[in-house]
This record gives sequence, C-alpha cells and structure tokens, in this order.
Amino acid sequence: MPKDRYYIDKDLKQGEVISIHGQEAAHMFIIMRKKRNEKVEIINGKGFLAKATVIDASKNSVNLNIENLEFVKEKKQKIILIQSIIKPDRLELILEKCTELGLDEFWLFKAVNTSEIHFSKSKLDRFNNLIIAATKQCGRLYLPKIKIFKSMEDLKDIHGQVFFGHTLKNSQKLIDSYDKNNENIYFIIGPESGFTNNEVNYLENNLKALPVKLNENILRSETAAISAITIISHLIGS
Amino acid sequence: MPKDRYYIDKDLKQGEVISIHGQEAAHMFIIMRKKRNEKVEIINGKGFLAKATVIDASKNSVNLNIENLEFVKEKKQKIILIQSIIKPDRLELILEKCTELGLDEFWLFKAVNTSEIHFSKSKLDRFNNLIIAATKQCGRLYLPKIKIFKSMEDLKDIHGQVFFGHTLKNSQKLIDSYDKNNENIYFIIGPESGFTNNEVNYLENNLKALPVKLNENILRSETAAISAITIISHLIGS
Repeated sequence: MPKDRYYIDKDLKQGEVISIHGQEAAHMFIIMRKKRNEKVEIINGKGFLAKATVIDASKNSVNLNIENLEFVKEKKQKIILIQSIIKPDRLELILEKCTELGLDEFWLFKAVNTSEIHFSKSKLDRFNNLIIAATKQCGRLYLPKIKIFKSMEDLKDIHGQVFFGHTLKNSQKLIDSYDKNNENIYFIIGPESGFTNNEVNYLENNLKALPVKLNENILRSETAAISAITIISHLIGS
Repeated sequence: MPKDRYYIDKDLKQGEVISIHGQEAAHMFIIMRKKRNEKVEIINGKGFLAKATVIDASKNSVNLNIENLEFVKEKKQKIILIQSIIKPDRLELILEKCTELGLDEFWLFKAVNTSEIHFSKSKLDRFNNLIIAATKQCGRLYLPKIKIFKSMEDLKDIHGQVFFGHTLKNSQKLIDSYDKNNENIYFIIGPESGFTNNEVNYLENNLKALPVKLNENILRSETAAISAITIISHLIGS
C-alpha cells in the first residue's frame, strides 16, 4: 500500500502551494499526525502524482508545497462494469473491490428485477469516499467513474466487446471468449434473481453481448462482478 | 441459487427418514414456512444431494423422507488457499466468497506480521455457518475444509503447484505460470503488511512456491485471496 497518499479534487502544478480541507485534512493532521516539513503524496484522480512537503497543518486545513509532479496517461482500453442495482452493502463491496482491481467505469442500471434505483446524496457521497479510499490504497492514479442509468434500454455509447454472466452449463468461459484487440471491455451483471427473458434477448440482440461462464458454481451478483473484473484485469495486464 | 436447500451433518440414505434440528430446522419452519408434503433439497457437504418431503415440521425439528439421492464424486484436483490470518471481518469475506468460487480447503496460518491467532469457539462457529450458507447457495455439494496452522513452518503435505502473491512488477502473471497437469493448486496470501524477507525465502526455497502477479494494482490481502481463487477456478473449470 502506498503510504501517506492523499486525494484532492484539484489541478496540481509543480512548485505551487495547495490547501487541503475537510476529511483529507483531518485525516492527515489527526490520524497521521503530519507536521511541517514532512513529505506526503497527493493524487487528484486524473493521472497526477505529486510529492509534496507540509508547510503547516491543522485539523481544518493543510498547506503543502508541490515539489515533484508525475503524470501517467490514461490507458486506452477501458474496463467497464455494467452492474444492475443490488443491495447497497453488496454494491459497496463491488465499488471497493473493483476499484482495487482496476475497473475504469461503474455503470449502475435498474434491471427489471431490481427493486430500487434512488440513491440519497449521503449514499452517493459514501460511494465516492469508498472509491477514493480504494484508489489511494491500491496505487492507481485515476479515479473510476460512476454513471447511473434508469434501465437497460438507456445504456448507450458502448464501443468494444460486451459480455454478460450466464449460468448455463454450456456457456463458453470468459477466458475463451475474450478478444484482446477490442476497444473497451464491458461486463454486464444481473440482479440476484437474474435477468428476465426479455432482458436476455435485449442483451444478445441489441447490445450484442456474449453470454459467458465465470465459474462452475452459481455466484451471487457481487461475487460475479468481482470475478469478472478480476479475470478481465488479469487478461489485460502486462 | 438452488431454492430450498438445507444442510445436515449426517449420512443420507434413500428411503430413510431424517430429523433436522437447530438453526436449519428453525429456518425451514419459521422463515421458509415448510409444511407437510412440501419438497426440499438436503445436502450433507460430502457429495450427497437428497430430494426429500416434509413429514412434519416445528421450530425445533423437521422430519423428512428422503425420496431420491444423488452422489457426485469429489474432484481430484483441489484448490487450496493458504491464507495468513488477517482481521476477522476480512477473513469472513474470504471464507464466504472463496466457498462460492469453488475453493476446496482454507488453510489459515500465522505469518510473522500477523498479530493474533486465537479464534474463540463462537468465531469458529461463525466461520462454519458462513461456509455452510455459501455452500447451499452456490450449488456445490462439498463443504470446504478449514485447517489452522501455527506458522509457515507448520505447513505440511503439499502436493501440487504452489504460488504466492508478489507485488514486484516483473513477476509473471498467474495465468502464465499455471500448469494444469498438477495434482493440486495452492495459493499463499500474506498479511496486509506483507511477508518478511525470511518468509519469502522459506516460500521459495522450502515450499517451492512461485511468485506471481494477480493484478497491476496493489491488492489488499482479502482482495488478493478472492482474485487468486477466481482465476484458478476459472482456469480449472470446464
């Protein structure tokens, strides 16, 4: 785990002084006890990694001098999880684990068998804090994006290979269906009670999604999501 | 998810009457409201799947008649996770998810950087209930085994290919190191703060374990465990 890494939603420039407020400042001052002249790392979730020195710190704000700045280009081939909405605690597990595993975008959508789509402001803040924490911890420099769709028919702008998890014993394995030359890789995961027949038709005919098998056992929705992203990341990784 | 599947730690024989007590009986009677003549499935975690009919049910015991019994042989090539002990909530996530993903044996051991090894009776019961629930849910017929070892030097009877997660950028990927002809597949996962140099030496020289990469990012201990078992199960699966 990268030590002493903090997140700020700002542009970063070498030689500049930045001020961190809110939770990250409190964490830096109260928990990590950062003092004048100590070195920390700052990321902004947009590819920048700054080495910075604390100028002064309090529980409300920390001022830092950016001494060194690196930039890493965003990868071209994106991994996108298209996850039907499930119970919040299981959705949070997906957000945390798939951020670690290198997912680029979470698309959440309401499947026919999904009961609820409304997320409160505090729930969305919690989702955001989870992916920031996982981003800092796993060393990645880009924050994954979250998009919310009202239904399967609202899913647009898909460019690449599309899969969905299928429980039929004779589906091909993901590893045997994956084509590394595609633009992006999309994996669609259904709710606990599965897709309806109409949804499966829409997936196959409209979204050109391939049914694939992840495991011999029947996986829960969140386990299937984590498995799919694990395997795709492992296949894409160098 | 297989519906109406229950677990009993007993031998099952076709045509016999069995009695289920405790939690499983309460679940069957109170939550699932099973009544006389209803059909359920019973597993014993040893390869047997019974179709049974309720004779009578109360919250303390349910009597069933076993009408049909199937037996599936245990697979020859086992997947064994050798997991250093980490915080209980994260260990529970590993137990639940890796049971779903087809893990055969959990070996827990105290690494040098593991602080605690003692598990109370109630904690071990909780572990056991978690793997029973996951076993019923994912459709597998064998309950995974849990073994506890005092240290890395206590790990014995290893027959097959052994891997451990390594964060070095130049380690080979698991998929490129995996040899499907091995007897069993073992994956060793370190604690959050990693293995000591002595432990890495012991892994490589005494246990003949191969360092492999699971992901480009730095994974938490439990994410690494779930990833490793996801990939191995996917590679072994038909």
